[in-house]
Amino acid sequence: MAQNKPYFMTIEGIEGVGKSTNIEFIKRYLDAKHIEYIHTREPGGTALAEKIRELLLQEHSEKVNEVSELLLMFASRAQHIQEVIKPALALNKWVICDRFTDATFAYQGGGRGVDISKIETLQQLVQDDLRPDLTFILDLEPSIGLSRAAKRSALDRFEKEELDFFNKVRANYLQRAAQDPQRCKVIDASQNLEKVAADIEGVLSKQLLSMGS
Amino acid sequence: MAQNKPYFMTIEGIEGVGKSTNIEFIKRYLDAKHIEYIHTREPGGTALAEKIRELLLQEHSEKVNEVSELLLMFASRAQHIQEVIKPALALNKWVICDRFTDATFAYQGGGRGVDISKIETLQQLVQDDLRPDLTFILDLEPSIGLSRAAKRSALDRFEKEELDFFNKVRANYLQRAAQDPQRCKVIDASQNLEKVAADIEGVLSKQLLSMGS
Repeated sequence: MAQNKPYFMTIEGIEGVGKSTNIEFIKRYLDAKHIEYIHTREPGGTALAEKIRELLLQEHSEKVNEVSELLLMFASRAQHIQEVIKPALALNKWVICDRFTDATFAYQGGGRGVDISKIETLQQLVQDDLRPDLTFILDLEPSIGLSRAAKRSALDRFEKEELDFFNKVRANYLQRAAQDPQRCKVIDASQNLEKVAADIEGVLSKQLLSMGS
Repeated sequence: MAQNKPYFMTIEGIEGVGKSTNIEFIKRYLDAKHIEYIHTREPGGTALAEKIRELLLQEHSEKVNEVSELLLMFASRAQHIQEVIKPALALNKWVICDRFTDATFAYQGGGRGVDISKIETLQQLVQDDLRPDLTFILDLEPSIGLSRAAKRSALDRFEKEELDFFNKVRANYLQRAAQDPQRCKVIDASQNLEKVAADIEGVLSKQLLSMGS
């Protein structure tokens, strides 16, 4: 039974790719299958981790050092894992997480150019063997995603980055997906919503089948 | 000339050992020698690092994960090193820092019981080869220090820890000092202020002599 195998699912992608809409679709799909889950996000997911998120997203009077930004990401992640993700998995609930460590590799590694080995070191230090079971990477031309994001709210410190930054973030996501195709499923988010949802449903139903549900 | 050799000095010790008073003494001593310096502190020292300090010292509705706390300490340190410490040393100024990485080993390692190898990993990741040139460890029976600290202001999240926690912090400070006696000078802070200042002055004048000032 699916309920008896907790499952850690992450949804990744740059601004404006439709993560929220598709997470709602995934939740309805799991509801229909009577699978218990929690829905959470990074950076954030606990009261303290959300305060760290605020520090990460707000503007500062000084340049934010890229290693400091990286450590804040993992500080929020350590709190989130301990307080939310591991307890949910221990209760046999699925976890749907809006961004996780792939985003750190993509944004801080790909975008900012932080040495990937530093991110790998922190991943090991904070997560031990915790890794997502399945990751959807919603892929879209950054110029399209950014124009969508700009329409919906004021831009945060990351969203204000230049197009070139997001091109590097996207390239890193796709490179990681190519290295780990078993876990990472790239979804073409330039398609209409129905087609995107159908692609996600295809992955999920195959996954549930393989789990004997 | 002392001014031509920048020098990184840290002052360590548990609550109530008299760090502030003795830092003022050190500043007057350096002023008299016409040595340029900056005085800063950890966690904190920049606008963003002070915001991280606030998160570290305030009470939270959830248990603060010890690895998250450790990462917040190093996030504030990375910012502080980049924005304050390295620029000052590059201008040939001395740096007097109220607590640094020895405090992380003592509080998060000794006090909280975080694996020392994790702290060493982060020290290397954040600091590369930056280490203090000289560290004063003001040593005092924790019960005395805590009763002094309790008199001066409301207690923060660390100051509210039990005596046993501070006994472990102190033991870690002394252990590190024993391992690195060239850098770490333990000062008996149970003595009267004049005697403490005389001990500090003795270390500083010997140091300046060895630097050819």
